[in-house]
This record gives sequence, C-alpha cells and structure tokens, in this order.
Amino acid sequence: MNATYILRISCPDRVGLVNEITSFFKEHGHNIIEIDQYVDLHQSRFFMRIAFTQATGALQEKLGDFMGRLNGGTEWDLHPADHKLRVAIFVTRESHCLLDILSRSIDGELPVEIPLIISNHEDLGVIARQFNIPFKHIPVTAESKSGAEAEQLALLKHHQVDVVVLAKYMQIVSPDFIQAYRNRIINIHHSFLPAFPGARPYHSAYYRGVKIIGATSHFVTEELDAGPIIEQDVIRVKHSDSIEDLKRKGKEVEKNVLSRALWYYANRRIMTYGNKTILF
Amino acid sequence: MNATYILRISCPDRVGLVNEITSFFKEHGHNIIEIDQYVDLHQSRFFMRIAFTQATGALQEKLGDFMGRLNGGTEWDLHPADHKLRVAIFVTRESHCLLDILSRSIDGELPVEIPLIISNHEDLGVIARQFNIPFKHIPVTAESKSGAEAEQLALLKHHQVDVVVLAKYMQIVSPDFIQAYRNRIINIHHSFLPAFPGARPYHSAYYRGVKIIGATSHFVTEELDAGPIIEQDVIRVKHSDSIEDLKRKGKEVEKNVLSRALWYYANRRIMTYGNKTILF
Amino acid sequence: MNATYILRISCPDRVGLVNEITSFFKEHGHNIIEIDQYVDLHQSRFFMRIAFTQATGALQEKLGDFMGRLNGGTEWDLHPADHKLRVAIFVTRESHCLLDILSRSIDGELPVEIPLIISNHEDLGVIARQFNIPFKHIPVTAESKSGAEAEQLALLKHHQVDVVVLAKYMQIVSPDFIQAYRNRIINIHHSFLPAFPGARPYHSAYYRGVKIIGATSHFVTEELDAGPIIEQDVIRVKHSDSIEDLKRKGKEVEKNVLSRALWYYANRRIMTYGNKTILF
Amino acid sequence: MNATYILRISCPDRVGLVNEITSFFKEHGHNIIEIDQYVDLHQSRFFMRIAFTQATGALQEKLGDFMGRLNGGTEWDLHPADHKLRVAIFVTRESHCLLDILSRSIDGELPVEIPLIISNHEDLGVIARQFNIPFKHIPVTAESKSGAEAEQLALLKHHQVDVVVLAKYMQIVSPDFIQAYRNRIINIHHSFLPAFPGARPYHSAYYRGVKIIGATSHFVTEELDAGPIIEQDVIRVKHSDSIEDLKRKGKEVEKNVLSRALWYYANRRIMTYGNKTILF
Repeated sequence: MNATYILRISCPDRVGLVNEITSFFKEHGHNIIEIDQYVDLHQSRFFMRIAFTQATGALQEKLGDFMGRLNGGTEWDLHPADHKLRVAIFVTRESHCLLDILSRSIDGELPVEIPLIISNHEDLGVIARQFNIPFKHIPVTAESKSGAEAEQLALLKHHQVDVVVLAKYMQIVSPDFIQAYRNRIINIHHSFLPAFPGARPYHSAYYRGVKIIGATSHFVTEELDAGPIIEQDVIRVKHSDSIEDLKRKGKEVEKNVLSRALWYYANRRIMTYGNKTILF
Repeated sequence: MNATYILRISCPDRVGLVNEITSFFKEHGHNIIEIDQYVDLHQSRFFMRIAFTQATGALQEKLGDFMGRLNGGTEWDLHPADHKLRVAIFVTRESHCLLDILSRSIDGELPVEIPLIISNHEDLGVIARQFNIPFKHIPVTAESKSGAEAEQLALLKHHQVDVVVLAKYMQIVSPDFIQAYRNRIINIHHSFLPAFPGARPYHSAYYRGVKIIGATSHFVTEELDAGPIIEQDVIRVKHSDSIEDLKRKGKEVEKNVLSRALWYYANRRIMTYGNKTILF
Repeated sequence: MNATYILRISCPDRVGLVNEITSFFKEHGHNIIEIDQYVDLHQSRFFMRIAFTQATGALQEKLGDFMGRLNGGTEWDLHPADHKLRVAIFVTRESHCLLDILSRSIDGELPVEIPLIISNHEDLGVIARQFNIPFKHIPVTAESKSGAEAEQLALLKHHQVDVVVLAKYMQIVSPDFIQAYRNRIINIHHSFLPAFPGARPYHSAYYRGVKIIGATSHFVTEELDAGPIIEQDVIRVKHSDSIEDLKRKGKEVEKNVLSRALWYYANRRIMTYGNKTILF
Repeated sequence: MNATYILRISCPDRVGLVNEITSFFKEHGHNIIEIDQYVDLHQSRFFMRIAFTQATGALQEKLGDFMGRLNGGTEWDLHPADHKLRVAIFVTRESHCLLDILSRSIDGELPVEIPLIISNHEDLGVIARQFNIPFKHIPVTAESKSGAEAEQLALLKHHQVDVVVLAKYMQIVSPDFIQAYRNRIINIHHSFLPAFPGARPYHSAYYRGVKIIGATSHFVTEELDAGPIIEQDVIRVKHSDSIEDLKRKGKEVEKNVLSRALWYYANRRIMTYGNKTILF
C-alpha cells in the first residue's frame, strides 16, 4: 500500500508527542506507512514526518483542529504524496547540473515537472529546446537587475513554481527575491562549505593545496553561501591535479549533490529550522 | 536527562504498534528519550528501539505483561543504559584490531569492560600485560580444538562475558561454540563481503585488480563469512599498490569497521533478523 | 605548450629503460610534457605513458626503429593528442548512463565523438534524436543474435568506431564480437565486483544485507563480469533502503563510474595487461 | 631487491631533466627501484623522488658534484632507506592519536622510533609507561611558555629527534620553535581545513549544520592552521548527531589522518614547496 499524503510537523518538544500524534491517526483510521521523528535537544524542538494512507472523510479540517490543540508554536504542512513538484531551473553557461536534473527527471527518479528554464545567457537554450522545455533569456546587469527579477518572479508565479533551483546560476539574487521564496531556492556551491565561499573556489582550493574538494547544496539566504545546508559530498584530489582537473572532478560532485538535494525536497524529506536542515 | 533503560522490540507488523507501545510508556510515566523504528516490508516485521527514563515502580514485570499482550511472535529485551558490556577478545598474531578496541575502551568511547583476551599464540600476551588484562594462551590444533573450545567456553562463562570479538582470530569456531553465543560473536573479515570470502583476500584482491578494497564486521554463523553484516567500509587502491600496500591500507579499515561494530553492539543499537542487521 | 602526441610503451623490465627512452626524446628534440611509468614486479614488466610535443621530422618511422631495438616483447602505440575518440554506445532501456555520457560529451569534458547509438529496444531512440545522433534499433533474440552482431559489427566498421561502450546493454556479447574489439568494449556492471556478478545484483545486495553497494566498469572478456577492472566506486546504504532505493542510489554510481572509465580511455590513460589495468 | 637510499630533488624545470638524472644513475651503476616525478607548471618547478640500490663507491660525493652542475636553485636530500625516523610526540589529554601512532609503530607499519613523549599535562604518562617510552611533563602557562619551549628544544636535540608530531597538543607553538623545526612539525587539526580553523571546530560544525566533517594533518607554520596540508579525510554526519557524536566520529578520522601523514613522512614521500605538499 502506498502513502497518499505526507505530513510534516515541527513544534516545541514535550513528553508524549509521538503518542498523541499516532493516537490521532489511529482514531481517524489513517494508516501510517512511514514515520520519522527527531528531537533537537539544544532547541527543545520536535520534528516528525509521516507518510500515510488517509481514510475517507475530512482529513484536512480535522488535522487542522488537532494541530491547533497540539502545542503553541506548531508548524505543519500536508502534501499529496503523488504531487509532482514544479521546479524552475536557473542557469548561466554551465550545463552539467541542468542536464543531470533533466536526466533524472525523464527517467522518473525525480518526481518533478520543469515548466521553465531561466538564464541570463542564451547558451543553454539549445538544451532547453532538446528537452522541449520553455526557455526564457533574461539578461542581468547591475542596472537591469531589479527589472529582471520582477520578470523572473512574474514567470514563477505564472508557472505555479514550487521551488527554484540555481543550477550554476552565476548571479546573486536579491533579498526581496529570497523573501518571496524563503527556503524554496536551492543553490549549488562548488566547494565544501564553509570552506571557500564566494567566487572561484577551485582556484582557492588549488592554491591552498587541499587534498579533498567538495560541493554543497543549500537554501539561499541573504548571506552569501551561508544558508541551511542540504547535502554535501567530496572527492579526493592529488598534487598533480591542475585547476582544470579540480573543475572536472568537481562537476561530478556538484551535479550529484544538487540532484540529491532536489530529490529530498521533492519527496518532502527536508525540514528546516534556524540554519540547519533535517533530512528524513 | 539521560536514559536509564534501553528496550528493543521485534514483532510481526500491524497497524497501530507505535501508538500502543508509546501508550504503555505514557500510562506508566516512563519518559522516552530516543525512539527508532523500522518496518521490514518483505517480512512484515516491526522493529523498535526505545531509550527511556523509567518511573519508579515495577518496570520489568509490567513490561512483560504488556509484551505478552502485544502480538504473537514478539521478541524483546531490556538493558540498563549504563551497563558496561563485558567483552572477550580473541586474537592470533596481528595486534591492530586488539589495540584499537583497547584504545577506544580506555578513553571511554567504547562502554565496555574487557575481562579476558584469549589467543592461540603467545605473541600478543605482551599487549595484554601492558593494558593489565588477563591473557589466556590456548593453542588450537586439529586434535586439540574440541578441548580448546571447552576451555574457552568455561572461561567465557566464568568471566560472565556478554560478547566475543574475533579480532583477527585466525581459527574457525565450531557450530557448538557458535550456538552457545548466537549473534554474540563478532568477526572482522578483511574484504568487502561477499567479495573474497575465506583465506587471503588481499592476495585475491590484488590479482583480481580491484580499485577499492574493504573490510566487513559480521556476526559469526555456521557458514564461513556469511553471517549478518554489521558494518563495512572501503579504501581506494592504485595499480601501483603491492599486496603489502593493500594489507597496510586494509588494516586501518579493518580496525575501524570492527570497533564501530562493537560500538553499535555495546550501545544496544543492533537488531538482527534472518541474515540482516538493523542499526538504530 | 600542449602535447601533440601520446605514446604508450609496455615491455619486459630491465635496468635503464627510463634513461634510454628519454634519451630518444632528447636526441630527436621531442619535448616531454608529461611522463608516467610503472613496473609490475610480479610480472617484471615496464609500462610508460609519455605526452610530448614532437619536433619536425619523421616521428613515426624513427620511433618504430627505436622500439624495434628496445626489447623483445615490446608493445607500443602512438596517438595524436587531439584525436577525438569515436564511441558507439549500446543501450537497452535505462537512460542514465547514456545521458551522462552525452552530457559530458557536449560540455567538452569527454573528448569523444558519438557517431552511433545501438539498442535492442526502441525506447531510447527519442534521446538519440534529442541529441541528434544516429540510432539503430537491432532486436536480439536467441535466434537472431548471430545476425544482429554481424549487423552491429558492420555498423561499427562503417562508422570507424574506436571503442564500444555497453551503457546498460542487457545482452551478453559473443566471443567473436569480443575478439573483434579486444580491450575496446567497456561495460558497466551494477555491483562492486567480484561481489554479485551476473543478474540482479541489487536484489542480491539487498538480501545479503550489505551496508555499501557499488558499481564497476571493466573491459568485456569471454568470462561474464570478469574482465580487467577500470574503475569502481561505492555508496553507503541503510537497513531501511528498499531494493528500489538501492537501484536509485546505484544509478548515480553506475553513471559516474562508466563516464570516468571512458574519460581514462579517451585520454589514453589506460594500459591493460593480463586481467588488470594501469591508470596513468 | 630493496632500495638502499631515497633521493629527493627539487629544481627549476627545464627540458631533459629526467634524462640527465637517470643518466647519472646509469653511469654510476646505481639501480633505480622506484621513480616518481612531478612538474608544477605554475611555478615551473621539477620534483623527483628516486628509491635506488647504490653501487659500491663514493655515492654522496659524486651526487653532490652532479647536483651542483644540475641547475641553479636545486635542493636535494638523500636518506638511507632503512633509517628509522626519530619521532617526538607532543600530547595534552586526549589519547586516541597517541595510541594510534604507538599501535602502528609496534606492529611495524610505521618505520619510526619514539624516544620521547612530551605533555603539558600528566594524564597520558600512564600510556607512555605502558609502552615503555620516556614521558616528560612540561607544564605551559603564559609566563612559563618561553622556558617550557627551551626545555622542549633541548630534549629534542638530546634525543636527536627528526620530526615532532603534535598529537592533539592543545598549545600554540612559538615562531622560534617552528623555525627550529621548519616543515618538521606535523599537527592534526580536527576539521576539514580551511573550514573551521582555531578552537572548537566540532561545535562550529554542529551549529553550521554541515553534513560531513573531517580532519587535516599539516605542517605547522607561523599562521595558525594554515601550513602545508599533508592529508585530509572526512566522515558523513547526520542531523541527529550531537556534538558528542561529532567528536566520537571525528576522533577516528583524526587518528587515521595523522598516522597516514606520519607514514608519508617516515617513508620520505613528502616534498614541500610554498604552502603545498607533493605526496609521492
């Protein structure tokens, strides 16, 4: 039996929460398929993800009532398990992350729809056309940035986009843009953060002489490369690797790390609090 | 607040188990600190580990009553959280796994007591004496094996040993010995099982030309190197690595993998069913 | 200065080889850019790869004379450094490895041309058309196999194919086919060989309860999944991962491992002897 | 045949160096067992390590003559291959790195002698006594630091120490001390540098919410945690890992990374230039 809904709950911790929540499901006849919970002891906060098959009847309303009684400070959301996440991909000139997401999408691994690719350059339009996805070229300069973002936001709204993926989009997005998609903009940074934030991390890694390089996917916040980390991975490098070798090896890590982050997101497996993520 | 007990339950799966079990804890005032569960869908079996602080009163008896009512086929055990696991270490001539366990023990990482080291050779007696641990030299030949095992079993009983660790013990233990310590004998095998079971796996790995080698810790069963796997890890090798290089690199993996397995065991984090382990 | 040629030499080892070979280069004014060598002590065999910029003059002939004088049993080959490897990709229904090679090809990471995709099913024709690559559907049954391979070989010849990549091609190729492309057919097997050769390795891994899964790229030989290994990698799995989870995690490893093998091949960095590979 | 000497050369790069150096060996009848070279293209510098069996005759003198003619700016050193490196270990209170080095030393993996353990606390004296190694307790306070270092340096000189290993020595050594043992002091830092330099990196990693932690061994320079990196490794962490879990997992990485660095050093496999290391 497959789950029909996914519920996520975050609230102040106290004794008995697992029991109370599972009692609600038992009482209403919803069948729990998968349950994960975690308590952050520093912040005394409880997190839970439940995948379940709902009984007939008014799920949403009763769940709302229950959550209202549960605890002050409770946050929750409910998603149909078969909802296909609507993803807009922002790119500049590098294709590897875009192509990896498209590849995982067409073979069904990533349960997403991609109604839109936006780029500040025209280069990757050819790939969008190969995959038959609308491509919008929106140049960005210091002067045009505000208007460009307005155009981007209008497109996101029009296409009912759930999440924005910056797949090597070499522009810094503004606080207003971030605010509009809080914890819904996923970036890939080509270093093992917090090492080497900002520009040209492979150059920095080369000159620092590290023996391992990495990549980091994270939610975008107002502070550059400092948002909640979703996934990271690394690859070993040798003294004989040039900067070009680092870029080549790193590209593989980048695309894997970004696509995995999107998989977690699409399956409603990420919960964010403060500057950290919980991956269920 | 720290847990005072650890409870593990395994039973046929059905709807409502999490709720019923947490209801028991709520009703009796035991405070759940940490809870993990898993359902094996192939075998329709439910597994749970709960670390909790017990209320005053007759825990053991009431828990027994509850478990009796829970489900046919329920298995459970209860351990004081501060119990120090009593470990006997069996060795032959190689010291690295033994020294790693001793090292992690004296700095408190491994919550174990080591009342006994047994070896079929005298070489490592010097290390036992360094660490002030009783060392028993029990030679094993084809003829003496049965008597040797009887002597070993008597010592294990006398020292109230909970678990036996074969830390590069180059002897095959008999079915009778295994039966006496079912799922309580942890072995380290120096390959990434099921690749290269049996003798001389580094030689085999070298001649096969693999690019990665590994090690596997597992419970000992009657079939050689085929018991439930607890932990595995790997390390990359190069075409220029000799068999000696493989042994050297492999030793690091072996000791880490064995000590991690023992950590899981000592913290009551392993549940075994059929030929698989669950690590909570 | 970039290399214009890549030379690979393999010969019985003896004292002074590095000096003699570098003397040839010095004498003729060829400038060595990169040099790698390795001596297999078990087989007493010497291996060298030299990337160099040739001086004007008759390189090939003089090199042939030199090699003739070098040692009995010397094997060597010489390739223009800018030669783009001509690759035929064989697929069945799974797209992830194919798409990863195409992706790395169009962004220039893989210096290859792909004149041909061959499949025993029609499913992936759509991807071939997206990337504007000729696609040939050649069904294979027990009866038609011999004729199908004749047709495949004719196409490979017609398209002057250097190397065949079996990118999840779920057919066993015949000894005659292997003989025609000895050490020029690269397969990806979805396990950490020699563990789990043959069919359904993820099922086997699941039931064996391993804690890490992997993938292996290797040259195809007459013995199934037993040819020289080029590259391997692994990923950690959990007790809660289903067979579907193993497949999903494994696909990422498979495509990375296969594309890396092709990168080594395209850059003339693989030397094969007996059943092992040297990666320079 | 085993090598009797190890030669390391570093000099400005130019055409023909490999040939000239191997010609010297051929001319004098020294038999090269192992040869590694690397050219740093950014700095146009050539590096080579040769393990060889010397012919009878005046090796050192002739080698000196040859090196004098080779190139301006040539640096080289020559070590008997069977020289056992003399290592002083500095510790504070944590034992895991110390015990790992001692363990690898007694089983012959690390070709070192350890004439001396120095600590600013008395705690680990018991381990030194277990392994029968002289232990010197030298307390360090802001006032006593200069005198303490003088005492340390005198001991190092007296014991003819080749290299100092800071095995979780929680004191910053002075520029004078560093100058006396330039590129001969190896430190272990418990983070994946350059992330989280300085104090309490596991706390920082926890609060930053990274998904992977690491450790770094490096030569000590005047700038804290910024010297040439020798080796790094990482381990994956989960959202549910506490700071204590990070410390436990990290300890395993720390000791492996430090012991590997010492292995490279003891086998004369490290060459340092600028702020980078070459590992042959």
